[in-house]
Amino acid sequence: MTDLVRYHVEARTGVGFPLKAGQLLTIIDPQGEQSGDLVAFGEADKAEWLSSGRSIDYNETIYLTTGHVLYSNRSTPMFTIVEDTVGKHDFLFAPCSLEMFQRSYGIQGDHPSCFDNLAKNLASFGITGDMLPTPFNFFMNASILPSGAITIAPPLSRPGSFVRLRAEMDLIVGISACSAPGCNNGTCKPIDVEITGKIGA
Amino acid sequence: MTDLVRYHVEARTGVGFPLKAGQLLTIIDPQGEQSGDLVAFGEADKAEWLSSGRSIDYNETIYLTTGHVLYSNRSTPMFTIVEDTVGKHDFLFAPCSLEMFQRSYGIQGDHPSCFDNLAKNLASFGITGDMLPTPFNFFMNASILPSGAITIAPPLSRPGSFVRLRAEMDLIVGISACSAPGCNNGTCKPIDVEITGKIGA
Repeated sequence: MTDLVRYHVEARTGVGFPLKAGQLLTIIDPQGEQSGDLVAFGEADKAEWLSSGRSIDYNETIYLTTGHVLYSNRSTPMFTIVEDTVGKHDFLFAPCSLEMFQRSYGIQGDHPSCFDNLAKNLASFGITGDMLPTPFNFFMNASILPSGAITIAPPLSRPGSFVRLRAEMDLIVGISACSAPGCNNGTCKPIDVEITGKIGA
Repeated sequence: MTDLVRYHVEARTGVGFPLKAGQLLTIIDPQGEQSGDLVAFGEADKAEWLSSGRSIDYNETIYLTTGHVLYSNRSTPMFTIVEDTVGKHDFLFAPCSLEMFQRSYGIQGDHPSCFDNLAKNLASFGITGDMLPTPFNFFMNASILPSGAITIAPPLSRPGSFVRLRAEMDLIVGISACSAPGCNNGTCKPIDVEITGKIGA
């Protein structure tokens, strides 16, 4: 009954896939110090989406780790974090986008981004860029000063570090390996994704 | 050229209205210690929405106050905060909802909520509950411990305190007076809303 799918998400790319209730999704940092974005939608109704605001509210924390449940905009559990060797992820930032690179890095031309990589890989499921909510920023190492100001340090993930989530409903999932050097200690690296449990059904 | 519209938002209710670029929106706490939610959409295209993730990212803070710009999911400025007599608002929490009251307060039957009050008052503009993003939580007094845990204290607003925002594009705006006693020092109170600048056009 246990099968396995593995996606190797190259640096500055993304992947989109269905995930069935009960399946385990493991997000692995193969080289270390690489963050990324996770979004999810109800497979049956794409108007249901993984909600930062519900998840932060119900868990009463901005850092989500083992034991926390990630909720949809309709307050339905979408994921439970069942294992986490890193312990620091947040739910604060929009996916990096071309506009972000223009604003924050002064880039003129095109540039890969989490936004484009999520939108591109979710398009075949009927999900558009405008539908992308604030994602779960896995392996992101953001700290909040008492003033509210945010500082971003290199991810705490080391080679092979992972966070494992159990799907609590049938989902369409998008994952990107972040394209911004600033939150990945200067170098954009790949992310590995494993699905275990009954495939298909 | 200066006109004025004032909405008195009764306790546990909401309001929805168009706001034109350049108009000033003043959100007033008439009695003090009352928080609420603000959402906004592009008037021309409701698929453009006020984004917590973009606003937190570009301002590099979880507390937004005078001088900060609030952005859409497309990285377009929607509002600039031009005056603020309170100084503490965040962008972290989903609007309180019936499910929240069931989970967090053990309420069985119906209960007013920011979610329902925003959805109800925005319906005539073609905006549904599933389209409501994480709102700007005005006058909300949330603090983040180094662990990431969130503590909520009574709002810092006193009678007559306000935050004033300039619209940077034509918008549809939803505002609610929060229905949850927990973040309003035990009592749900009204919110006043003023629009100044050219009305209509």
